[in-house]
Amino acid sequence: MQDPITSDIPNKEQKEALVVFQPSGKRGRFAHGTNVLDAARSLGVYIESVCGGRGICGRCQIEIAEGSFAKDGIQSHQDHLTAFSEKEKRYSELRDLKDGRRLSCSAQVQGDLMVDVPQDVQINAQVVRKRAEVLHIKPDPSTRLITVSVEEPDMHKGESDASRLLQALRQQADLRHLTLDPSLFAKLQTCLREGKWQVTAAIHQDRETDPASVIALWPGKRPRGYGIAIDIGSTTIAAHLCDLSNGRAVASSGTANPQIRFGEDLMSRVSYIQMNPGRLPDLVKAVRDAVNVLITKLAGQIGLAPQDILEAVIVANPVMHHIFLGIDPVELGGAPFALSISEAQNIAARDLSLSLHPAGRVYVLPCIAGHVGADAAAVALTEVPYQSDETQLIIDVGTNAEILLGNKDRLLAASSPTGPAFEGAEISCGQRAAPGAIERVRIDRQTLEPRIKVIGIDHWSDEPEFLEEIDKVGVTGICGSGIVEVIAEMYLSGILSSDGVIQPHMAERSDRIEADGRTHQYCLWDGAVPLTIKQTDVRAIQLAKAALYAGAKLLMEKLGVTQLDRIKLAGAFGSFIDPDYAMILGLIPDCSLQVVSGVGNAAGTGAHKALISRTARREIEQAVHDIEKVETAVEAKFQEHFIDAMAFPNKVDPFPLLRSQRELPAFEAMTQENSNKPRRRGGRRARGRAS
Amino acid sequence: MQDPITSDIPNKEQKEALVVFQPSGKRGRFAHGTNVLDAARSLGVYIESVCGGRGICGRCQIEIAEGSFAKDGIQSHQDHLTAFSEKEKRYSELRDLKDGRRLSCSAQVQGDLMVDVPQDVQINAQVVRKRAEVLHIKPDPSTRLITVSVEEPDMHKGESDASRLLQALRQQADLRHLTLDPSLFAKLQTCLREGKWQVTAAIHQDRETDPASVIALWPGKRPRGYGIAIDIGSTTIAAHLCDLSNGRAVASSGTANPQIRFGEDLMSRVSYIQMNPGRLPDLVKAVRDAVNVLITKLAGQIGLAPQDILEAVIVANPVMHHIFLGIDPVELGGAPFALSISEAQNIAARDLSLSLHPAGRVYVLPCIAGHVGADAAAVALTEVPYQSDETQLIIDVGTNAEILLGNKDRLLAASSPTGPAFEGAEISCGQRAAPGAIERVRIDRQTLEPRIKVIGIDHWSDEPEFLEEIDKVGVTGICGSGIVEVIAEMYLSGILSSDGVIQPHMAERSDRIEADGRTHQYCLWDGAVPLTIKQTDVRAIQLAKAALYAGAKLLMEKLGVTQLDRIKLAGAFGSFIDPDYAMILGLIPDCSLQVVSGVGNAAGTGAHKALISRTARREIEQAVHDIEKVETAVEAKFQEHFIDAMAFPNKVDPFPLLRSQRELPAFEAMTQENSNKPRRRGGRRARGRAS
Repeated sequence: MQDPITSDIPNKEQKEALVVFQPSGKRGRFAHGTNVLDAARSLGVYIESVCGGRGICGRCQIEIAEGSFAKDGIQSHQDHLTAFSEKEKRYSELRDLKDGRRLSCSAQVQGDLMVDVPQDVQINAQVVRKRAEVLHIKPDPSTRLITVSVEEPDMHKGESDASRLLQALRQQADLRHLTLDPSLFAKLQTCLREGKWQVTAAIHQDRETDPASVIALWPGKRPRGYGIAIDIGSTTIAAHLCDLSNGRAVASSGTANPQIRFGEDLMSRVSYIQMNPGRLPDLVKAVRDAVNVLITKLAGQIGLAPQDILEAVIVANPVMHHIFLGIDPVELGGAPFALSISEAQNIAARDLSLSLHPAGRVYVLPCIAGHVGADAAAVALTEVPYQSDETQLIIDVGTNAEILLGNKDRLLAASSPTGPAFEGAEISCGQRAAPGAIERVRIDRQTLEPRIKVIGIDHWSDEPEFLEEIDKVGVTGICGSGIVEVIAEMYLSGILSSDGVIQPHMAERSDRIEADGRTHQYCLWDGAVPLTIKQTDVRAIQLAKAALYAGAKLLMEKLGVTQLDRIKLAGAFGSFIDPDYAMILGLIPDCSLQVVSGVGNAAGTGAHKALISRTARREIEQAVHDIEKVETAVEAKFQEHFIDAMAFPNKVDPFPLLRSQRELPAFEAMTQENSNKPRRRGGRRARGRAS
Repeated sequence: MQDPITSDIPNKEQKEALVVFQPSGKRGRFAHGTNVLDAARSLGVYIESVCGGRGICGRCQIEIAEGSFAKDGIQSHQDHLTAFSEKEKRYSELRDLKDGRRLSCSAQVQGDLMVDVPQDVQINAQVVRKRAEVLHIKPDPSTRLITVSVEEPDMHKGESDASRLLQALRQQADLRHLTLDPSLFAKLQTCLREGKWQVTAAIHQDRETDPASVIALWPGKRPRGYGIAIDIGSTTIAAHLCDLSNGRAVASSGTANPQIRFGEDLMSRVSYIQMNPGRLPDLVKAVRDAVNVLITKLAGQIGLAPQDILEAVIVANPVMHHIFLGIDPVELGGAPFALSISEAQNIAARDLSLSLHPAGRVYVLPCIAGHVGADAAAVALTEVPYQSDETQLIIDVGTNAEILLGNKDRLLAASSPTGPAFEGAEISCGQRAAPGAIERVRIDRQTLEPRIKVIGIDHWSDEPEFLEEIDKVGVTGICGSGIVEVIAEMYLSGILSSDGVIQPHMAERSDRIEADGRTHQYCLWDGAVPLTIKQTDVRAIQLAKAALYAGAKLLMEKLGVTQLDRIKLAGAFGSFIDPDYAMILGLIPDCSLQVVSGVGNAAGTGAHKALISRTARREIEQAVHDIEKVETAVEAKFQEHFIDAMAFPNKVDPFPLLRSQRELPAFEAMTQENSNKPRRRGGRRARGRAS
């Protein structure tokens, strides 16, 4: 990656290297010799440092991800940092510096680097916006605690400790087959004697047909068992620790998915694995380690040891599902997109190297199809469309859109390759939803002046308090909800035509619209770093929303409906994108706005539900089995719908219900002479972006 | 342990240390500075050495067992050897010298040592005398192989690889619930694609009520699955590798139980664990490692990898059963002799750190009672007394005697603390059954001259070939069958009275009888090292046989029978001790000699049977459940029977059937004035010698 002209000249100052920081993904070129902490700060990457770079506080730790990162075009290696310094040696002698960790205040850039900022040392790091919902279902967990008095040994009867324990439990729990997990063999004797022949056993039985098993034992009485519901997203991992006796969440937390260092989006991770054979175990370990950190953290919050947690439920998209289970996800990267495992799994924690109780059980929800994962199943479990009289459309947008459509008679599922535009990626000034990101936009219909709202600041930009507070976070980019709003507002105010062209003649009305080569752009924020919406940004959103709409429309045709009773928007998409704007842009089918709603973190809620209810597990297993899977990639109609859906709100669908509630520009069919007609990238978007 | 007078004098030559070699148990005191190989040779301990002590061949490897060995009164430590020598350093650089291993040709004694001679480097080491019997039962193994063609992935259906595989298998194997073991997740994809959608799956289902599970997968066709039946005895571990498709043993092998270094008999091992808290894991590892060495060796014999073995069956006495499962056996050392686990177990190989296929299953037979182990259950499975019309007495003598009595209506079990005398221990010139041991004895009724037969030589001592061959092995001691025969012959020839006293007046008839303090002794072999039978040796056999007989008689009373239809002698005892002599001494109840027989390695055969037949597993589980356990330790009658049984053949039971077939000295009641009346050690023998 070195400049061939300068690479022979031993002048360090002239050499530059590309440094990418994860999980933020921020990157920049830096002269050799730059220390990594300075590089991070110059990019606005948050690395804590309390001691002023003297190598004392140890908060500025980083790790280098090794290997070839095709997307970024770099080869990252440990030895692209200067050797271990005296400061680092001293720190690692006094404190504990894990293998592979460096102090960024001391290590200097000597070549291209993929820098991982570990979450465990960051105290003020990002807060994951996923909270536990309160569930109103009767707890019926797979694992329950039973305290029994066990007969003392009697040499006339000669029955073993295990026999007497199991007999007592079988009677009390009304179970026929009950076995003792091998991990308890060594402690059974002492448990019984310490508890003076009274013990509490955790009994696990998921299906009625499964033999029940004692998976944990404590001397004496123990009132509560705990489980953890874990939602492994592409960028964040969120978990709720729950009391299994009453089903309530008692602690929640999240962390960044450390796999970001192997690729920002899922397809990059898949290609990392393809290009770095043998590195799959690193990815597997990274995600399991992160889950273990969460488990330990949540257990600690209520004074438990990780081994006190008896159950976990995992939901994840197909790629993360596979990596978590140790399965190579490359088959998900190309047709026929074959899942290796889709059925629900129930695995001992020790077999997944999770730090729960070693015999604790990990229930993994079933995947629906190659691009419709266990996370979508969890959404279905929360929203129960399969029990509904109403015909519901449920959409969860991550990097892919997962779409469920139907009612109690028939339920269809598909995914649509929206790409990450709705998350702020692929947008020139886009960023993740984080402090500093523009999340709301209004454009004055006359002056075309925008008002914005920024994450981290409670006021709109035309309120005086905004200026007082803006220095705290800055205005750093635009996130998913912001990009949807600005495009919709540009369309509503006439800056955009219904076919998505930034109108040149509008430049006459406002300086904010200006030429940008052969196209035009709209200046949304004219601060120190101006933020503009370019024609390519509009195109990215058109492609994404067309894919989403085409998927939904295809399913409606399959189901034979033209009208929906309800539209539910799940996940971050549903929580932060305004349904009005989503419909104005034509992301979702025409519908009365009153029946469109965000349903929050439905995947996490589904995991929680499966954690505390066996009934829920059987229910979703059956539902997933019954769901009709539609593969959009092979449906000719999808292409047609996709092209029609490029227009705002749509080229052929008039959206009468929307128009009855909101004033839109007149319905105009897209004309053939439109010079800037959107090009389809390679016919159809690259597939394989599992959500 | 040092002599207090010499310990302050820094003269190495004057210091001596006690060195004990295992598995032989031979010991001696040696001057500091003696090299360990020389010490071993001076005791007749076999350590290979090919290079003449030059540190080249590496065959003379030893290990030091660390800790406090109460029985031998020593503290053994690595640093009771001289430091690692130049020879050893060179060897370990050139070859591979495992951690903790030393070359005995180089290491010198510097203090008390418990030296373990590892079996893996000994090529000419002892042969274990356990062979596989041919079984005539229909194979019905828990694990079967099925080859199926799996549908290729179809994106219209979207079913996962696992779903399609399980579906194909469910159809072909007629199974409803079938799951995939998590250890196969990572390889499923490649297996299917390598095999061009044809794979062979190993399906494990033990009980009909268990969910079946795919535990192994291979691309394409694979005709045979293998399992291993393992009999973990106190001194030896024997294993048969079997073809699960036809049930036949294809390779057999044995190894010494490495736990001998923690104690010659089981009670010594229990007390080692009590006195060395925290060392249990060492014992667990030692036995599992030895099993793994056997697995690897047997697999290698037929060109398999250990991971190709899909099942194991374990039988063991209660102490070894517990240690193998990782359970502290100390509770078995004292009343109420409570087993921690007794029920049959079915455990994944990975959870026991066995080197089978990680998802391979290990079936452990049930234990019957605190001193009647899974080995006794295996004997019952082979001999099926619970299906017999005849009333059978089945005796397996190890360090304890395990006794089964009954028929298809009712079966009783007990153990009796015979101690290890029948194995040649506790006898002044006793040794294990090994080349050089006297195994057969005849005494001329007139001259009182003995004829002997020695293991390793095919001729009796009065045949000319004996003298030609005897130098090969020497006459080194007397083993269990020999001691029984010599005592019986001494009794038959009048040297012993029926109450077990070596008769002083017989010294007039032969020089072989001579005074030994206040008692007399009989010289059995007057070679370079004379071997004599002392009065204490006779007492040891009287105690052992009285315990055995008392146990059998107690069970007969419980069952309400006075006559037996059949007596079966299992194990080494049954294989090598002549039933005639056993009955003449009164080891076993009176019976026609035609119905007394040795039944060979019935425990190993039972393990083999359980390996290849689920029916057999259910059968023995039910039988063990139904067996009535009798604890001899708490039966008052046992004491009475025990005292009566001290006489030959018995003080009160006249043995009419025996007398009708063999000429015995006249039946004489034991007289009170017998000055050498056997003393009962502490009332009753120390309990807790599990067999």
